Order: sequence, then structure tokens, then C-alpha cells
Amino acid sequence: MSLLENLNWRYATKRMTGEQVPQEKVDYILEATRLSASSMGLQPYTILVVEDIELRKQIQKVAYNQPQIVEASHLLIFAAWDDVTEAQVDAYMQNIATVRGVPVETLADFKGSLMGSVVSRTQEQKYEWAARQAYIALGTALAAAAEQGVDATPMEGFDPAGVDELLNLKEKGLRSVTMMPLGYRNTETDFLATAKKVRRNKEELFLTIA
Amino acid sequence: MSLLENLNWRYATKRMTGEQVPQEKVDYILEATRLSASSMGLQPYTILVVEDIELRKQIQKVAYNQPQIVEASHLLIFAAWDDVTEAQVDAYMQNIATVRGVPVETLADFKGSLMGSVVSRTQEQKYEWAARQAYIALGTALAAAAEQGVDATPMEGFDPAGVDELLNLKEKGLRSVTMMPLGYRNTETDFLATAKKVRRNKEELFLTIA
Repeated sequence: MSLLENLNWRYATKRMTGEQVPQEKVDYILEATRLSASSMGLQPYTILVVEDIELRKQIQKVAYNQPQIVEASHLLIFAAWDDVTEAQVDAYMQNIATVRGVPVETLADFKGSLMGSVVSRTQEQKYEWAARQAYIALGTALAAAAEQGVDATPMEGFDPAGVDELLNLKEKGLRSVTMMPLGYRNTETDFLATAKKVRRNKEELFLTIA
Repeated sequence: MSLLENLNWRYATKRMTGEQVPQEKVDYILEATRLSASSMGLQPYTILVVEDIELRKQIQKVAYNQPQIVEASHLLIFAAWDDVTEAQVDAYMQNIATVRGVPVETLADFKGSLMGSVVSRTQEQKYEWAARQAYIALGTALAAAAEQGVDATPMEGFDPAGVDELLNLKEKGLRSVTMMPLGYRNTETDFLATAKKVRRNKEELFLTIA
């Protein structure tokens, strides 16, 4: 199926069956997510992949008790870096140098650009910037799940501080920004399973300047 | 090709050929973008589709003179709502009611949820929230372009205030957050065309809690 067909097939699944998603499908979705674009390529986030049902029950308590968190097979939690430091930029430069087989010194201009345009911002601005990048990854992950016939729900409906505490994210320099349960729709209990998709009309969403 | 193959094929194209992207491919990419997920489904952004080369030359001047802006066929500009108001929520409720054929009164709880969790925030918080949603759409647009064999570049390297002024976005209640030129890679002038893709290793990017 085409991406367009996949996007029409998917919806924000509120009730799932509990059925396990095969590991190769999870791996495929994670690999697509790993290949996501991000500003300057920094990928300033960590993605937690939670299978542990007891932990998910605790997360559910700080997420308005939403059933898909425990009815899913896996719960992805996108956590943005709460700061962007020179050490992180240096690690990235080293990764580029290694992958492309170039001396890290040749990346001085690029490092300078990242330092000037991102690292120099306030911590809160850096966190907001990092969060936006995580949302590109969320968009990719949603497309990948749909392609694999796996249901997924983008979720902001949770207490980030509560989730951060459960997962010790603060000490890891991370802040949870969005979640995505992976699983299979329960067409008997999910009233959205048969609801028509609602999107803004293209005449409203797009403004063409030809 | 699969999404994974498409994501491996794409890269942040810095130099393009100027060749026109066929309208049906542009339409496909826009339709996929229109189907993007967003928090509560509100889609709190407008996407400007700029073909006009004179306007793109002006935009280029406030975007560090980056060549892909004028070497592209079309320039997409993602502009987030600078506020989220009850009137906008009401318009969305009306759209849901029309598409699903239900009385708008049946959506009172959902409206209340949007009012309480989003509209009640400060204007700056609402803008940041809207910007994040636009980045999901950016992620979808990048996947759609790659599927169509069209090159695209996610861009933050521009002066948002300058772009907003050129496009009169402030008076439209919008703020530019990211751009995406659509076109075709120039393999002779773009040194990135043959560069290996660099991404964080999965061992670093993902944290599995089984």
C-alpha cells in the first residue's frame, strides 16, 4: 500500500486487543524512526521502548487511566534532551567523522554552526527545540507503524513530570514529550475504529502562492 | 519501495536542479501531509506552498542565502498558529460534526477537553504546542516526498520574523516554524548527495524496558 493509503488506514487507536506485535515489526518501526530527519541531524532525544506491563500500569495512572497504554504491545515514550551541550555536539561530530571517514577537524565549521545556532540558546529554548525534533520522529514512527499494519496512537495526554519520575528521566537529562503505544485496534470496544477521519480541508490548510 | 528504503534514499538536499516537480506529485505530498496526525486532531498550522520565484528570492535573503530555496520547484513553509482560540476549536467541532454527521452538541466533552488542556494555556505555550504539531506534519511530508522520488530538505535555518513579514503571517495569526523545499538533487554540486547517512546508533537512541 502507498503512504497515502496507510495514512487513511491509521487512526488514533484508543482501545487495543493486547495482542503482541512481532519483534521484527517493532524493529522495523524503530529503524524507520531512527532514520528520521532532525535539525542539523542531531536527534536530540531518546526513545524509551516499554514492554514491562507493571511499569505501563504505573504510567497509565499518570496518563488519565487511558486503556491503550496497557492494551498495547509496546509503549514508545519520546523524551527530549532537557539541554543541548557542547559535549553532546562533540559526540555527534565524532559520529559523523567515524561514519564518513573524515578527520573530526574538518567538521569545525559545522560544529561552530551548531554551537552558535543551538547551544547558545537558553536551556528552555533548547528543550523546546529538542521536543520539536522528537515530533518529526513521531511523524515517521506513525507512518512506519501504519505501513506494517500496526496500530499506534500519538499521545500527549499524560503528566510529563509523573512519567519522568517513574522512568528517572530527569537524572538522564531527558523530559518526556509524547508517547506512542503500538498494538492492534479492538474494533469491538473502540468507537473511533469506524469513525470517519476528520481533517481540515485542503483549501483551509494550504495557502498557495503560485 | 518500503518506507525504510525511502528514508535511506532521502537526505537533506542542499543543492537542487531547478527542475519542476509534476503537480500530481506535489498534490500527493500535500494530501499525505494533510492526513498527518496532530494532538486532538486540531492541525493548528497553515502550510504555505510557494512557487513564485521572486518571492522565493526574497525569502532566500532572510535564510542565509541557501540555494535550495530558489533551486527547488516548490517551497513549503509550515506556519504554526500563534494562538489557539475558542473560535478555532468551535470551527473544528463543526467540521467533526459535519464529517461524521453528528449534532455538534454531542462533542461538548471533547470541546471541553480541548479548552481545558490547550486553550487555557498561555499564548506562548499554545504557539509552542502548535509548532510541535507542525513538526509531525513535516515528518509526514518528508516521508511522502521520498516515496514520490522527490527530494526535500527540512529547514530551520532562516529568520522567522523576516519570513513572517514577507508573507504577512502575523496578521494571519501565524508564525513560520520550518520550511521544506521540494525538487531534485543536483548530484554535481551537492556534496551531501554521496555522503553516508549519519544517525545515532540504536543502542544510544533507544532504551528498552522489557
